[in-house]
Amino acid sequence: MIRPEEAASAESHDASRQPLPASTRVYVHGGIHPSVRVPMREITLSDTKSFNGRIEKNEAVRVYDCSGPWGDPAFTGTVEEGLPALRREWIMQRGDVEEYEGRPVKPQDNGYLTERHAEYASQSEKSNRLREFPGLTAGRRQPLRAKGKPVTQLQYARDGIITPEMEFIAIRENMRRTKIADMTEDIVRNDLDKQHAGSSQEQTAYTPGIFRRFPQRIPAEITPEFVRSEVAAGRAIIPLNINHPECEPMIIGRNFLVKINANIGNSAVASSIEEEVEKMRWATKWGADTVMDLSTGKNIHATREWILRNSPVPIGTVPIYQALEKVNGKAEDLTWELYRDTLIEQAEQGVDYFTIHAGVLLRFVPMTASRMTGIVSRGGSIMAKWCLAHHKENFLYTHWDEICDIMAAYDVSFSIGDGLRPGSIADANDKAQFGELEVQGELTKRAWARGVQVMNEGPGHVPMHMIEENMAKQLEWCHEAPFYTLGPLTTDIAPGYDHITSGIGAAMIGWYGCAMLCYVTPKEHLGLPNKNDVKEGVITYKLAAHAADLAKGHPGAQFRDNALSKARFEFRWEDQFNLGLDPERAREFHDETLPQDGAKTAHFCSMCGPHFCSMKISEDVRQYAARQGISEQEALDKGMQEKSKEFAAAGAEVYIPA
Amino acid sequence: MIRPEEAASAESHDASRQPLPASTRVYVHGGIHPSVRVPMREITLSDTKSFNGRIEKNEAVRVYDCSGPWGDPAFTGTVEEGLPALRREWIMQRGDVEEYEGRPVKPQDNGYLTERHAEYASQSEKSNRLREFPGLTAGRRQPLRAKGKPVTQLQYARDGIITPEMEFIAIRENMRRTKIADMTEDIVRNDLDKQHAGSSQEQTAYTPGIFRRFPQRIPAEITPEFVRSEVAAGRAIIPLNINHPECEPMIIGRNFLVKINANIGNSAVASSIEEEVEKMRWATKWGADTVMDLSTGKNIHATREWILRNSPVPIGTVPIYQALEKVNGKAEDLTWELYRDTLIEQAEQGVDYFTIHAGVLLRFVPMTASRMTGIVSRGGSIMAKWCLAHHKENFLYTHWDEICDIMAAYDVSFSIGDGLRPGSIADANDKAQFGELEVQGELTKRAWARGVQVMNEGPGHVPMHMIEENMAKQLEWCHEAPFYTLGPLTTDIAPGYDHITSGIGAAMIGWYGCAMLCYVTPKEHLGLPNKNDVKEGVITYKLAAHAADLAKGHPGAQFRDNALSKARFEFRWEDQFNLGLDPERAREFHDETLPQDGAKTAHFCSMCGPHFCSMKISEDVRQYAARQGISEQEALDKGMQEKSKEFAAAGAEVYIPA
Repeated sequence: MIRPEEAASAESHDASRQPLPASTRVYVHGGIHPSVRVPMREITLSDTKSFNGRIEKNEAVRVYDCSGPWGDPAFTGTVEEGLPALRREWIMQRGDVEEYEGRPVKPQDNGYLTERHAEYASQSEKSNRLREFPGLTAGRRQPLRAKGKPVTQLQYARDGIITPEMEFIAIRENMRRTKIADMTEDIVRNDLDKQHAGSSQEQTAYTPGIFRRFPQRIPAEITPEFVRSEVAAGRAIIPLNINHPECEPMIIGRNFLVKINANIGNSAVASSIEEEVEKMRWATKWGADTVMDLSTGKNIHATREWILRNSPVPIGTVPIYQALEKVNGKAEDLTWELYRDTLIEQAEQGVDYFTIHAGVLLRFVPMTASRMTGIVSRGGSIMAKWCLAHHKENFLYTHWDEICDIMAAYDVSFSIGDGLRPGSIADANDKAQFGELEVQGELTKRAWARGVQVMNEGPGHVPMHMIEENMAKQLEWCHEAPFYTLGPLTTDIAPGYDHITSGIGAAMIGWYGCAMLCYVTPKEHLGLPNKNDVKEGVITYKLAAHAADLAKGHPGAQFRDNALSKARFEFRWEDQFNLGLDPERAREFHDETLPQDGAKTAHFCSMCGPHFCSMKISEDVRQYAARQGISEQEALDKGMQEKSKEFAAAGAEVYIPA
Repeated sequence: MIRPEEAASAESHDASRQPLPASTRVYVHGGIHPSVRVPMREITLSDTKSFNGRIEKNEAVRVYDCSGPWGDPAFTGTVEEGLPALRREWIMQRGDVEEYEGRPVKPQDNGYLTERHAEYASQSEKSNRLREFPGLTAGRRQPLRAKGKPVTQLQYARDGIITPEMEFIAIRENMRRTKIADMTEDIVRNDLDKQHAGSSQEQTAYTPGIFRRFPQRIPAEITPEFVRSEVAAGRAIIPLNINHPECEPMIIGRNFLVKINANIGNSAVASSIEEEVEKMRWATKWGADTVMDLSTGKNIHATREWILRNSPVPIGTVPIYQALEKVNGKAEDLTWELYRDTLIEQAEQGVDYFTIHAGVLLRFVPMTASRMTGIVSRGGSIMAKWCLAHHKENFLYTHWDEICDIMAAYDVSFSIGDGLRPGSIADANDKAQFGELEVQGELTKRAWARGVQVMNEGPGHVPMHMIEENMAKQLEWCHEAPFYTLGPLTTDIAPGYDHITSGIGAAMIGWYGCAMLCYVTPKEHLGLPNKNDVKEGVITYKLAAHAADLAKGHPGAQFRDNALSKARFEFRWEDQFNLGLDPERAREFHDETLPQDGAKTAHFCSMCGPHFCSMKISEDVRQYAARQGISEQEALDKGMQEKSKEFAAAGAEVYIPA
């Protein structure tokens, strides 16, 4: 029986399933692999009604959709059942994995000393009580692992195999590109498809130096073969654990759309499993491409199981967090054996990428003593403390090859941690940070040698003029493996607004070539993000990533901007709202000043009022010019330069009415 | 008698007078001009309590303060009285101005046909009712104007005069610089004064090309003579109308701190005089360096009077807005005579800078016909419509020299408008935009020839990779006059978040050399900003401007970041809140997770909990290293590189306890 308060809570935890306005779910099918079905969100637009009464249809706009089955109104599953195993068949058909018994779950995995402690906790009334994921009721699904050689997408790519995952990604990334590639220049010119060249397409006097040394290679169309080749070269990763078959394939690499990650996770101080699962779905609804579960405290294993079984996007973790819980927070008690066991525990559950701080070497630790803010990475500080306590080199570094072999057996990707990232503007780009980055490069090569996919984590807090150096050194030292940064924050003085201080840095480093941006919420440095903070962080990063895609010149990236701006210019208010990243907020803000329904079809807005609208006047100018025979086409045909000279020479005469 | 609802409203309209926490108002006195008293906000900090029990004092931090007398708890004035005339004496002592009768206020100035209409409105119960500013009750203060040659700060600067205004600015801009300039390198090194060189101090492989062609010239100390020389060269302006003596001097130029502007203003659809006055004070409380009154509709003159008499910062307007109201919104009915009369009306009131769209030439108008979003500037579209309706060149262009002479007589600065700025990503950097920018350059030279101060307005919507070109062309074509941009927005797809899409562009163009950033609020494109939106916009732009100051390497800019980060590292929560741009929000966010008072002195936070704090661990590392004799000073003395080699060679041995 569900108690009333639980029902209310279930409802509020289901907010992420409300569809976005004017949106339908569509699927695009694969050609090489017929079982591939790529979800997209299609936004229906209203007609353009010109001032002269002409009516024109506006093509629906398809956008990238991270929400998985939760975003499909036809999907009737629940979080208790978990998502369908989309990739199960693809994985099994490759014939290179085996089911096995797997490691038994221990009370310690959830932070309890014994079974009895765990049982007591599960009966307690606290919101943090242990609640096992009830799905797969016919018994726990047995984990998969490689029978022999690596089962990674990198290995397949090197072997020349285009997997269903790769085709899925090609379709997903491609969006409008096939259409654009087919167009002659003439058709494109007057179309919503026109866009600026961008730094990947054209070098100008204003192109940052980094693009001369490391040009981006973004083709007009993303083919499955292009996906394969980028993965094979190590320039992109497809983070997909074979034990997370619920996940929809996505790619992280600088020649693809810039991705964003949202962090969630309970901690010793606050939040519950239900909240974290809903935060994950909520984050993907608004556009999180991956989610990191950074839980600490009790019930880490159970929380992760809930999240993985319900997540349509790759899940990342920092396994040292759980390992530390198992030794009651005493870094010096950590051992390789315990850590290794934790890696396997999480790999069997299906975690798609692990942050591993193997670059925090003993010799770098004293370099942080004179810093403004020492070591701010949790993983980094744990390893630093371990190193000093034992007078030994970081065990993650000394056991790197063994770690690689575990990763290769499940296709877990590396996110090599930056444990010494700067925690303040003062500490940016210092010797400790760059020392670790060089080691990240060495570790990248070693992982590649064992067939494991790799990305590298980066800062942190960096003033704007020092961001490009971070990207350039990462590309050089880490051999063009994808970079994944936290912001960076471009100033320290705005606690409460660090989604913005970091959104600035994120957009810039995304332009320079960073493949994935880890979001920062308004609560950064202050507290745990709630659902509103998660949404604010995701949308801030989504717009930063998109600004980077525009600056890079991703073919098709500008289409949505064009469609939205056209709607804005034509006073199609509903379309303007619906094409935005947050239709709800746009509508709410508009209605605050002009709540009447009529205002949403009116040819003016609250900023200027009915008699004083620059867009209205501008439309008048256009009509006027057209009446006088100065057609747009004529202007285009004759070339703007000549036309304007002609106007200047003829002066007022051109405009004399017929 | 005050009715209850009015009392409540008065209270909420006084929120801007609440002092910020731990802050006191201090004044720094001038040396050349003893009557100069420069206000600053001093933030008191708590002591550092080390883990080893040592206690150290932390020096109070002084920050730039735009709030004027409203930010001084000792000030007891009211908005009905207006602010004291700070500069009156300085202006009169120069002996180059005269009082005169001035233009009588007409009913049309407030949008009424006759006196009777205005009177009726003043008795109406509507919140928008006409309410004359009651201050100066002994009769209206007579306006001042030049007796002969220009009374502009530019003219004085050229004549080699260091005005009190210039000394005020030097002290205000200098902040910590005098102290830093006095320090030997040794003292600075371990101090909060250490900071990164920045693009104005050092060229690296990552320095954008623009700094090679147009190096910034930011001295270690800002002297009154430096202020004078920058103004004389036209690279900076001091927007201060002689009829706005309430205003505190400030400077706009790329070798000074980056400034921000907040737009306010009622419109035909919403908002009242009281609201707008309070929005102005509210904006300056949070850091607006100038405020533009963009009112339209009724009561424009009265609203402006209220704002000017109460504003400690320069006020800008777009006079064509009021002129258009006087012709009932019909652009084609505008005349030079009406516009000229409006300029004088506003100059006599004390407006400090005028946006004038004189660069919207007839020949550019057809270039906008094929744009995605035509003409989006209100002023630009009005002038475009006028040009087409009359088949004549823009009358602001043809009467430019006469306009200059009016500006020179009151020291009103030009903000030459960018009426053809792009309103969408698609339209960025097009021929219409750049055509107008070239004309802005021509107009700049002509204004300088008549002794008038000038800045130029810029876009708009520009993708990141096209921002530097905007700044470079402006510096080249407009002869290094200060640039003042609206954002720019780096994508069109996030209505509701355009403070952020534009904050990204604003920070970048500020770094490249833009002198003032016009804020964008979350309501941009959607509705009129309320007080919360104004604050959100101001703080977003304040952090963007500060990020730019850091990237430029303004001496002393990093001090506040350092002080805040040190407080953060030392778990001085209150200091962290108070040093931020928005102490209230920082505290509120922290308390959402950990409301207990003890949590604000605790050595942990809600993100990790008491047993798992990276900053705590990092502090342990520092203590540990210190105990082992690896002192910070030793590390510094020997040089990090050598030390780290030594550690690597010695391995674990270095850390063996005594």
